Order: sequence, then C-alpha cells, then structure tokens
Amino acid sequence: MGKAIGWAATSATSPLGPYTFERRDLKANDVAIDIDYCGVCHTDVHRVRNEWPGTEYPVVPGHEIIGRVTSIGKNVDQFSVGELVGVGCLVDSCQSCDECYAGLEQYCANECTWTYQSHDADGELTQGGYSDHIIVRQEFVLHIPDSLDPAAAAPILCAGVTAYSPLRHYGVRPGTAVGVAGFGGLGHMAVKLAKAMGAHVTVVGRTNAKFSEARRAGADTVISLDDPTALANADRSLDVIISTIPATHDVSPYLKLLKLDGTYVIVGALEEMKQPFDSRQLIGRRVSLSGSLIGGIAETQEVLDYCATHNVESTVEVIGIQDVNDAYRALAAGEVGHRYVIDMASLVDR
Amino acid sequence: MGKAIGWAATSATSPLGPYTFERRDLKANDVAIDIDYCGVCHTDVHRVRNEWPGTEYPVVPGHEIIGRVTSIGKNVDQFSVGELVGVGCLVDSCQSCDECYAGLEQYCANECTWTYQSHDADGELTQGGYSDHIIVRQEFVLHIPDSLDPAAAAPILCAGVTAYSPLRHYGVRPGTAVGVAGFGGLGHMAVKLAKAMGAHVTVVGRTNAKFSEARRAGADTVISLDDPTALANADRSLDVIISTIPATHDVSPYLKLLKLDGTYVIVGALEEMKQPFDSRQLIGRRVSLSGSLIGGIAETQEVLDYCATHNVESTVEVIGIQDVNDAYRALAAGEVGHRYVIDMASLVDR
Repeated sequence: MGKAIGWAATSATSPLGPYTFERRDLKANDVAIDIDYCGVCHTDVHRVRNEWPGTEYPVVPGHEIIGRVTSIGKNVDQFSVGELVGVGCLVDSCQSCDECYAGLEQYCANECTWTYQSHDADGELTQGGYSDHIIVRQEFVLHIPDSLDPAAAAPILCAGVTAYSPLRHYGVRPGTAVGVAGFGGLGHMAVKLAKAMGAHVTVVGRTNAKFSEARRAGADTVISLDDPTALANADRSLDVIISTIPATHDVSPYLKLLKLDGTYVIVGALEEMKQPFDSRQLIGRRVSLSGSLIGGIAETQEVLDYCATHNVESTVEVIGIQDVNDAYRALAAGEVGHRYVIDMASLVDR
Repeated sequence: MGKAIGWAATSATSPLGPYTFERRDLKANDVAIDIDYCGVCHTDVHRVRNEWPGTEYPVVPGHEIIGRVTSIGKNVDQFSVGELVGVGCLVDSCQSCDECYAGLEQYCANECTWTYQSHDADGELTQGGYSDHIIVRQEFVLHIPDSLDPAAAAPILCAGVTAYSPLRHYGVRPGTAVGVAGFGGLGHMAVKLAKAMGAHVTVVGRTNAKFSEARRAGADTVISLDDPTALANADRSLDVIISTIPATHDVSPYLKLLKLDGTYVIVGALEEMKQPFDSRQLIGRRVSLSGSLIGGIAETQEVLDYCATHNVESTVEVIGIQDVNDAYRALAAGEVGHRYVIDMASLVDR
C-alpha cells in the first residue's frame, strides 16, 4: 500500500482539511496517475455534508480527475507512462452483466464502483481526486485529447458526460428545442453541448444573477421561473429539458414548457421528489418524466473527443485546495454558473 | 333541434335517472346514429361524481358508443344509412393544428371536444351515449368491422384504444415484457391487446379476487403488491407498464419492476400524484414516468380493425340502463375485471 495525501471531511459538519491515507499497490491491470486537476461537483457537497445519507468518513471527494500516468501494471496495453489521462465517476463494475456489455457500466446490474464512497473489489473504501494520486484499472481510465486544456477538461468527466448522455439519448440535433433547468457547473455544460449539437437552448432558472453567465455559455433564451408571462409564452415550446437542479423541486412549471412527446430528464436531484404533480400534465401531452445517470466509459471518451473536435470547453475557475471550503459554500448557495477546478499543485507536502 | 332520451345525473350525489334533452339538427357533414350499446367507463363515474371537479349537470355520460346510421348530411361520403358505426371519446377538434394534422386529435392544441362534458362549436354542452341517439360529424365516426360482436366492440372505443396507443407507441412486439398495473375494464383490454402483440404480460394489483379474471384474460403472470417476495423476484423484469389504476397512487413499487430504459405509462389516473417518489428510481435505470391519452381517430379505427383481425374481444357484461347505478358502485369499489355495456334497447319510451 502506498501513502496518498489529500483533503477530506471527517464529518458532515466539519470543513475539508489535509488527510493522509493509503492507496492500493499497482495491480497488473492498473494505471497509476499523478493528479493535476480535480473538478468540484455538487455531488461532492451532497456527499461531504451527508445530504444523501450514508456517507462514510473520512471522505476524500472528487471525480473529475485529470493527471499524468506515472506507472502501469504489466498487463496494461491502452496507456503509457507520461500520457495525460482522466478518471470520472466510475472506477470499476462487474464487466459481465448486460448493462456492462452494452457500455453502460453506470447502470451495472451488480452495482458499479464509484470513484469515492464505494467499496472496491477488495472491500476498501474508495477515495477520490482531491489527492495527489490515484490507482485505477485501465478499463476506467480515459484518454484526454491533446487539444483540450487540462484544467478545462476536468468537468467533462462528470458534468460533461452527464449532460451529453441524455442529449444524445433523446436525439438532440440541429433545431431541437432544448431546455436546461438550473444553471451551475452541470447546467453550463448542458448549454454548451446542446449548442454544439445545433439546438436552440433555453435556460430556465430562479437566479437572475446567473442569466448573464447562461447567455455567455451560449443560451439563446433565458426564462425566470418568477416571470409568469415568459413562462406562458414558452408553453409547449421545448422538446427536452435537462434538469440540472441539485435538489428536490416542483416539476410542474417545467412540464408545462414541453411539447407533445417531450421529456423532462432529471440528472441533478438524486433524492425524493416531494412535491405532488398532476398526472394530466404527462397524459395530456404524452410527456415523460425521466432520469439519466452520468454516462458509461465509452460515452465518456466520446464526449471528451466531441469536446476536442467541436471546441467545447468548460468555463472553469481554477482554485487552490485551500479555497475548497469557500467553493462549497458558494455551490450550496447556488451562486456558481461555472465550474471550480482544484489545481492539485496546491497540495502542501506533495 | 331533436328530442333525445337518455339517463343523466343531476348532481354529484344523485343516482342516474331518465332525462330528456335536445340534440342538434343534422348538419351537412353530420351522421345521425341510433345507439345500440354503450360501455360504462370509470371516467363516467369520475365525471358523474365530480371527482374531476367541474362537472356541469345534468350530465349524460358514455363514450363507448355502438349504433346504426339513421341519416346522413348531404356532404357525408364516408358512411351510409344502416351501417354499424362507433363513436369514442372525441366528437370534434380544430382539425388545423399540428397535432390534428398528425391524427392526434386527442392532443389538439386548441382543445378537442369530448363526447360529453365539452362545449361544441355552437357552445352547447355535449351529452354522451347513455341515450337513444347521437349526431356526430363524420370525421369522428368509426367503422365497426362486421366480424366484431357489437356489444363487445363498444369498449374498444375507449378502453381498447387507450391501451393500444401506448403499447404501439412504446414498441411492444413479440417478447416484450409488458406489465399492467390495475385490472378493470381498461386493464383487461391492455392484457388482451398486449397478448395479441406477442408480449409476456404481468398483471400487478392489489385485489386477489380479480387475479383469476386476469389469467382468463391472458395474463402470463400475476403479482400482488402485498407479496414482497413476488415483487422482489420481479425486480427489473418489465419493459413497459401500462398503469390503468383509476386514482392517485404510489408509483414506487411499480418503478422497481422496470428494466433499464423502461417506462411506466399512466393512462388511468387523471389527477394529482400526491405520493413522493425517489428520483433515483428514474435516474438509476434511465426509467421514465409517462402518460398517454386515449388515441386519435385514425388509431381508434386501427385498433377496431386490429381486434377484428386478431380476434381480440372485450369481456363484457351486458346490462340494462336500470342497472347502471349498481354498476357504478361496483366500479368505484374496484370489483370489476371486465366491462359493463349497456343495452340501449332497455331505455323506456324509446
């Protein structure tokens, strides 16, 4: 076992701070990666604060990892030392169920292993990318195209693929009317990717302060939920809405914006939807309320390559690890319309 | 205006009883129909009892109408006097929106006219099929294939097409695993049609008493919601569930039965879904919660022809109009696993 240094939270209420822990030794099929950058996802906040109950402490968050390969196991044939690589939300799965065969490891029938807060095949608690290095089996390591800025590539590994996968699944193409509900790190990637696919993009949200960021990201239209006239004018106007809202919310005002056969895809709120909704909103227009979970490994590579080819770049604010608790406060307050990315060179005693 | 006789409710709490009212005179594009049979749909109960608020009294329910053409307007070219015809849930729509052009009049952007409890183009309250005759524009009249039994054909006009439309929309074909939630008049048609399409059909419900009726209708498997072992064994087993439950209900136990990319289609409960549900159930398997509203006129003709070709027949219990209040009580109690159809020859003074 090798020593790793990172930042962790030791309880739901304590701030993140320096933490030393063990990483497994390199296995034959493993890639060892020195971490350069790690994105800060709202999921990190949910997990650290135990907003999705069950967090095991200490927790080292982080699943938008960019780094360089430092060594490879003897059976590794897809990566070489020195290569720029990425690790997203997944580090393992059964590799033998229908879902895994289909490249949908995130839906693995035998439960995939998350980059942090999972137990790996040896029973060890996985720890994430707010750390100096990580060891991952090669099937779950991504190639980072040369043309991508390494820091700006990090958010593609979670936010990017989480938006890309439903946009593809629901057939977004030139002319599709795409809505993005909520506008944070995930929402801004949804806007950029939908625009790259040729869609007309409408951002629907509550925080007017972020509307200028939404327009800069490429949104054609922004609608405030507090503007009944704008909402009424947008009735039956959208084909698909990607809901990046990170908490339970009333879906009714959004469902009204969908055309016949439209879909509201929840990708943000992994929790109980407590507000009642009128089933006539689904029945009256054959509308669907659906969900989508990140993307598989093949699709994560696809979105990385897509971003390189189509010049899609995440808007990032690079911070030191020492700023991460302030970043969490801003994220929880819904103030951020872009992505914080931690420069891991800031780790002391690295 | 011509005198019509029928049965109506005069308030949410009064039983149905004899009622005389006016039907419009025949217009150039109208078909006049003497009614032989009319099915009793759970919607009739909802409307009569004002369970969907807004009922205007007196209300003559009934939208599963089978009868003979007695006269036609001068521009009618699709029907002839003496022909056996049907009228379903719709009697008019704008005929000029995208939805109407697509043959989806039930989703008309300018609101379709329902067979009863709508106001027609002249502003008159429409009245349904618990009556001696009806006058309908030819675009909303259906041809009844010769090989169908007239009484058993009636339920195809609402229950049949309501089940058929989502089965087709969601691509049910030989081998598809179809669930039917709830088993009444609508559920029994869903079972028969899904079986005719070659699906493996599972009925999920609460009332064990109706399970033998479900098996007789063709269900391959029946599962009680009160049997946790059976539910656990059926985890991830269904591609699509047609929910015929006529009231708000907790969707969670049903969502657990769906495979990756499965869909729970609400066709029964036109009301607020009050129970919270966990969005992880949607996200974790890319499952959808959707709805579907009857079917358009072209699809209603299609299901009538399909039933004739594939020998699909509704299981009906023919009653006199004098029995309708008892039938309502049984329907409201959820005791009925088939369809009541009123023989309109029972109307006194007809």
